[in-house]
Amino acid sequence: MMNTAILPPWIILDPLIESWLIEDIGRGDRTTDALFSQSPHTSCAQWQVKEAGVIAGLPLAARVFYLLDPEINFTPLTTEGEFCQDKKIIAQIKGKTASLLTGERVALNLVMRLSGIASSTRLYADKIADLPAKLVDTRKTTPGLRILEKYASSVGGAINHRMGLDDAVMIKDNHIQAAGGIEKALTEMRGRVPYPLTIEVETSNRQEVEQALKSGADIIMLDNMGEKGMKEAVEIIRNFNPKIPIEASGNITLERIRAVAETGVDFISTSAPITRSSWLDLSMTMTRLCP
Amino acid sequence: MMNTAILPPWIILDPLIESWLIEDIGRGDRTTDALFSQSPHTSCAQWQVKEAGVIAGLPLAARVFYLLDPEINFTPLTTEGEFCQDKKIIAQIKGKTASLLTGERVALNLVMRLSGIASSTRLYADKIADLPAKLVDTRKTTPGLRILEKYASSVGGAINHRMGLDDAVMIKDNHIQAAGGIEKALTEMRGRVPYPLTIEVETSNRQEVEQALKSGADIIMLDNMGEKGMKEAVEIIRNFNPKIPIEASGNITLERIRAVAETGVDFISTSAPITRSSWLDLSMTMTRLCP
Amino acid sequence: MMNTAILPPWIILDPLIESWLIEDIGRGDRTTDALFSQSPHTSCAQWQVKEAGVIAGLPLAARVFYLLDPEINFTPLTTEGEFCQDKKIIAQIKGKTASLLTGERVALNLVMRLSGIASSTRLYADKIADLPAKLVDTRKTTPGLRILEKYASSVGGAINHRMGLDDAVMIKDNHIQAAGGIEKALTEMRGRVPYPLTIEVETSNRQEVEQALKSGADIIMLDNMGEKGMKEAVEIIRNFNPKIPIEASGNITLERIRAVAETGVDFISTSAPITRSSWLDLSMTMTRLCP
Amino acid sequence: MMNTAILPPWIILDPLIESWLIEDIGRGDRTTDALFSQSPHTSCAQWQVKEAGVIAGLPLAARVFYLLDPEINFTPLTTEGEFCQDKKIIAQIKGKTASLLTGERVALNLVMRLSGIASSTRLYADKIADLPAKLVDTRKTTPGLRILEKYASSVGGAINHRMGLDDAVMIKDNHIQAAGGIEKALTEMRGRVPYPLTIEVETSNRQEVEQALKSGADIIMLDNMGEKGMKEAVEIIRNFNPKIPIEASGNITLERIRAVAETGVDFISTSAPITRSSWLDLSMTMTRLCP
Amino acid sequence: MMNTAILPPWIILDPLIESWLIEDIGRGDRTTDALFSQSPHTSCAQWQVKEAGVIAGLPLAARVFYLLDPEINFTPLTTEGEFCQDKKIIAQIKGKTASLLTGERVALNLVMRLSGIASSTRLYADKIADLPAKLVDTRKTTPGLRILEKYASSVGGAINHRMGLDDAVMIKDNHIQAAGGIEKALTEMRGRVPYPLTIEVETSNRQEVEQALKSGADIIMLDNMGEKGMKEAVEIIRNFNPKIPIEASGNITLERIRAVAETGVDFISTSAPITRSSWLDLSMTMTRLCP
Amino acid sequence: MMNTAILPPWIILDPLIESWLIEDIGRGDRTTDALFSQSPHTSCAQWQVKEAGVIAGLPLAARVFYLLDPEINFTPLTTEGEFCQDKKIIAQIKGKTASLLTGERVALNLVMRLSGIASSTRLYADKIADLPAKLVDTRKTTPGLRILEKYASSVGGAINHRMGLDDAVMIKDNHIQAAGGIEKALTEMRGRVPYPLTIEVETSNRQEVEQALKSGADIIMLDNMGEKGMKEAVEIIRNFNPKIPIEASGNITLERIRAVAETGVDFISTSAPITRSSWLDLSMTMTRLCP
Repeated sequence: MMNTAILPPWIILDPLIESWLIEDIGRGDRTTDALFSQSPHTSCAQWQVKEAGVIAGLPLAARVFYLLDPEINFTPLTTEGEFCQDKKIIAQIKGKTASLLTGERVALNLVMRLSGIASSTRLYADKIADLPAKLVDTRKTTPGLRILEKYASSVGGAINHRMGLDDAVMIKDNHIQAAGGIEKALTEMRGRVPYPLTIEVETSNRQEVEQALKSGADIIMLDNMGEKGMKEAVEIIRNFNPKIPIEASGNITLERIRAVAETGVDFISTSAPITRSSWLDLSMTMTRLCP
Repeated sequence: MMNTAILPPWIILDPLIESWLIEDIGRGDRTTDALFSQSPHTSCAQWQVKEAGVIAGLPLAARVFYLLDPEINFTPLTTEGEFCQDKKIIAQIKGKTASLLTGERVALNLVMRLSGIASSTRLYADKIADLPAKLVDTRKTTPGLRILEKYASSVGGAINHRMGLDDAVMIKDNHIQAAGGIEKALTEMRGRVPYPLTIEVETSNRQEVEQALKSGADIIMLDNMGEKGMKEAVEIIRNFNPKIPIEASGNITLERIRAVAETGVDFISTSAPITRSSWLDLSMTMTRLCP
Repeated sequence: MMNTAILPPWIILDPLIESWLIEDIGRGDRTTDALFSQSPHTSCAQWQVKEAGVIAGLPLAARVFYLLDPEINFTPLTTEGEFCQDKKIIAQIKGKTASLLTGERVALNLVMRLSGIASSTRLYADKIADLPAKLVDTRKTTPGLRILEKYASSVGGAINHRMGLDDAVMIKDNHIQAAGGIEKALTEMRGRVPYPLTIEVETSNRQEVEQALKSGADIIMLDNMGEKGMKEAVEIIRNFNPKIPIEASGNITLERIRAVAETGVDFISTSAPITRSSWLDLSMTMTRLCP
Repeated sequence: MMNTAILPPWIILDPLIESWLIEDIGRGDRTTDALFSQSPHTSCAQWQVKEAGVIAGLPLAARVFYLLDPEINFTPLTTEGEFCQDKKIIAQIKGKTASLLTGERVALNLVMRLSGIASSTRLYADKIADLPAKLVDTRKTTPGLRILEKYASSVGGAINHRMGLDDAVMIKDNHIQAAGGIEKALTEMRGRVPYPLTIEVETSNRQEVEQALKSGADIIMLDNMGEKGMKEAVEIIRNFNPKIPIEASGNITLERIRAVAETGVDFISTSAPITRSSWLDLSMTMTRLCP
Repeated sequence: MMNTAILPPWIILDPLIESWLIEDIGRGDRTTDALFSQSPHTSCAQWQVKEAGVIAGLPLAARVFYLLDPEINFTPLTTEGEFCQDKKIIAQIKGKTASLLTGERVALNLVMRLSGIASSTRLYADKIADLPAKLVDTRKTTPGLRILEKYASSVGGAINHRMGLDDAVMIKDNHIQAAGGIEKALTEMRGRVPYPLTIEVETSNRQEVEQALKSGADIIMLDNMGEKGMKEAVEIIRNFNPKIPIEASGNITLERIRAVAETGVDFISTSAPITRSSWLDLSMTMTRLCP
Repeated sequence: MMNTAILPPWIILDPLIESWLIEDIGRGDRTTDALFSQSPHTSCAQWQVKEAGVIAGLPLAARVFYLLDPEINFTPLTTEGEFCQDKKIIAQIKGKTASLLTGERVALNLVMRLSGIASSTRLYADKIADLPAKLVDTRKTTPGLRILEKYASSVGGAINHRMGLDDAVMIKDNHIQAAGGIEKALTEMRGRVPYPLTIEVETSNRQEVEQALKSGADIIMLDNMGEKGMKEAVEIIRNFNPKIPIEASGNITLERIRAVAETGVDFISTSAPITRSSWLDLSMTMTRLCP
């Protein structure tokens, strides 16, 4: 699977990375500063996976070290999105021992978290790899990590859903209830959002699907329907306009995702690869010289 | 289990919470703004757990809504650290419909993540609740969430380990290797760290334990030793000075934690409740009036 | 014309407004501080338009004063989007004389700039008010003012185009040239952008329109075509798929806009109301008591 | 006309420029990132003026690209303050295609806005170039752009007036009214402002001019007086103290400015070149290789 | 001596005060949080001077507590600039015990530092209180504290000199040397600084004074001249133009300041009250109830 | 005396240094910008001490210039902590004249303040250099300067006490009073602070010392006891547990510190070297070429 994940320019990410280094270092790395801060001591560090999985985040780890010490030399030994077997060495880092030790935890935490997401996403994506339906993520992401967790999701094989509340419209059950129905909501909407934005409507039954179609929804989400209900909904929508994207959502598990894909929907969204994944275990070993 | 978890003053947390709202809202909540931003429409929202677990983070959710709209009324219906059964309503929120909808995701994401950690921590803590050993956390926390994930860990029943690189010294294997041994590292240290800070030394065998004791370590960590090795190490340390805290670390699982606690160590540290926990599932339902 | 313009929540705008107050005040308002800072002196200020125009920005002016002094009482005497004749009093402000004087310039500068944009936009919008085509803005906005200038554009009667580089895709001539053609660009794109985002393609002749259609563009922009070319393009596109939005762009003047609208395009984009408008002249007069 | 305009050190301007890039890029340049972010593709871009005018802001454009991508090579082909004929190429930019496309809009917006101001200012300045009176600007500047718009004003041939509320004292009509008169205001002032600061007093008739002189004003502004009134005031002031700078203000137009200058005032202030100027039209064209 | 010192609006100072609270609190006040953070315990605190001196900074102390906890009630029992005898109670603070204890150190540090400056400044000011010469401060202030240390200087009886590099021009020895002489420097200057700014020239002998006068300096500083040299310089300057302010500088001590004032200069600048003053000793005592 | 003082990584300090440059420069260095900003003029500057003392802060001065202009070449001619005689040249700086002049004041202010602290600290440290007791600092530091003033204290020969409220627990008289006694406070504490943190208890008499010991204090502070009381307290504590660190505090003067050290305490804390020290006088001289 070719990796198509994309990070925004560093000018967007640097403030986050700096804040994470500051979070961990606080007023100074007492241990490392006392032992090595005034010494020219250099080391070579290796990062090893302790369990098989998909790697994501190495460019970010490199940037963590760069922002801490521009003279650190970080060499990834794998590419983003590669599935690595247990014990594989995935990066080699050379430079001042003090910088290696002070930056270690932030860099590892990032890559462990993101690789965990990528690995979990890959499991879901693989289940439907031969079908037209695509896996997509959600806005259930750790506060502060939205861009990076969605990046990891993309590394793992998903396509990103909207990144925030401002790059697409999604009219969910609570909006519909408060607005007094799908039609009212869509009518209220017109001319009030940037014109290139698509309007997605969440529906939970046939009647709502028909209202959404009639009211001019651009994308239709089928939320928590059974496979049978989805098939019917897909047929109704395709008959109305074959170009309207259809998204299935709700209770998507590894066991069920293939059956959902086979209903003919275009996209299947689930937060599980982000909210239910474990970090991929990694460790760093330092030696005086590179092997 | 009484909850003793503590949040720092809001002046410390507000910048984080604001950045998380900004992350999600971006240039504006297109959906909600178009439907409700100019309307006086108010609603009542209820938060319900969708699976049993320990709740953590409700004061933060209240603050999310407060910073977005000071007139929102957030009423927690449970206390931090309480174990809630599936379907329990844990909070009621009243106010402008626009504010409820715009703040929903950030607030829920926080409480889902923190409650997931608290729930997982509780499982570990319960295994050793009747023994003197205490569960502690680590620095493997999501970048940007250190204070809050450690808070959730504490809500779940753990005691916090150091919060960053600056509030305690920990001399780990990589430090020891680079410094040329435990004794050299501890000698180098003297007078170079704020005097109230404790110095913990990571050891992996009897010889290192003895070096650490001889060199004046304040806390001794037994890393990745078997239970037998730990028992021996505990005996050696207690004989040397019964007041030195002993921490066990490495490969701590729900199955094994009790056996480790029975070796007589004082603290057992594990990152698993933070790095291997799922979010606790929660949902928000809105109605025009409170029930 | 009903005003449908929407401001995002204050949590998004407050940092900007604070930075603008700080820009003007610097280390302190020497004049006002020396005369009134320690005095309980209060005044009543009135804002008057000095030339007819459409008002935009009064909620922002109110917020400027609120952030400087929460006890200031700002009462708008008109609504956003209203066309006011010369000499109309549009707001009354009561409170500490020191706060009125220190906040005056920033508040006025904002409303003068935004009202100038709204007034100019209204001229363009009125020209096509009875036709289906809608006026839209562009990304040619003053650095730092994007959200507010687009808000003023919306107050004046335009619909917003994308707000930044991240909420819609637009493949322009430079992208096409560098990518090696429209088809290559659109192929490269697939699966690499959040799925709800629309892809707009800039075309300048019939051949490019056909390539864009064939390659799956969601929106087609006709850039710098004559009215005749536009009419032909509209026909081609409508025949291909009547739901594809068509945007006309390039050299849109007050004289020409109606003719462009009559070609049948859906949207007409121009930066002129933002880049070629003058500030609407306003002044503030203070008296001891409100009239 | 020699250009004497000065930009402060980058440490002052970089935070602004970064915020403007972030404003436009948001969570990522969807179009460019998808097409070029992982490609080594480089291009050469040329900036061309589309209408004759005075150029201002090229060093800022260079900095925009530098902060986005330090390897971009930006070569200005004209100097700040030069009057360029339509179609002149004013800059050439080489580097990664992705960086050229992502930075284009912010860089162009800046230079178009600033060149528009410089061009407009030049028109006013040229009218009085052979007279002793100097053109000066005001605090009517776009919020957030004060330093740069005043820089452009200076590039165009004006001398800057005070930059904010803290680098000079100006006692305006509202201050005088609230303080109870010019003399009271000036008395209240003494010893309460940093001693090197000058105190300017706004006057609108002969009586106020005399009060201002008697009370010790350092600079006298003649606000909205006719040319005849100004001449009288100038004579009174020169007789009192020939070294007191005199500033004319209010309703300064291109038609009238020369007559005002001929009254003998030292400075003529007007906001028009900033508040009533259009952006200078520029465009960027990209090719694979530089011509 | 009436206090004429002025603080800028809180919008200028709040970011500083917040950063100072965050500096001290870090990730949380371990002691107070553990003891009182979840308790409704309230207390009454009193601030007492432990040595006689001039008080400065109480409004800032009140703001420290307000930003930490808006419900704290801070009552100053003296006014800024009052000379207090040893043991005087200068403020009473009521509210949550946790907030009193967490905010104590930052608030006290501020007032102790500023009162130390005010007290020292008063000693110098009193020496020349009956002479026309005024005491002024310099830019030798603690980094980050410029506004507040100059405020304290003003509370103590000095008049502020320029606040930074941007609100007045001062051509010092190094500028003159690098520019190739006073005349060259002043010529280079013309038209390149905001026009209301004054230009002060540092001179160290009669020849330089004459050059400065001839070149059009607005203010003349006599740097490190003896009293005899100063008297001569004053006479030369007064003869040239009696309105030019004259500032004496260099080696100003409590012993010498009166003799310098008697030379007829208008201003005497010295950094000593800021760079050579001790903090005024204060302490806070807490009781359950106010006395 | 070997210097063991340590600065944290620049990522921690750069935001402070940048804010200090911005504080001084404001909207631009009027003098230097007008004279040299567009000139390639370079100079050589020398820093000379004007009174004997201990130097601290040169790496920070170098960073000030680097952040302002990365091409400045700053060469320290002494090492941190060295005692320099009057007139010694301590640094040479080469580069653009504009950068040397604009950065001068901030860089000098820092080094003068920090060297003043280091010099004063050295006086105290020298008094007890041959005794086991160590000098320590306190939290009485200038707001915003905590890390650097503690660094200077360390350069001068002190050991740092806790850096903030979060890296050690100190139960002071106000805490004890509000908590209802030492025992209650310590009981309340257990399990509520990160486990590696030490708990220090302030005691003022024998009874409190015994309570603190019995309640499990890790460190005991003897506050404002006489030497006789201290000796008794030391004996009681050593008998209870010879490893408990003992800190003496309160009214520590240069005259008395040796007597306090001779009571057998381990640490003597005093704020005087920070709150009662003068800046070390330094000056910068510029020439066209380095000597």
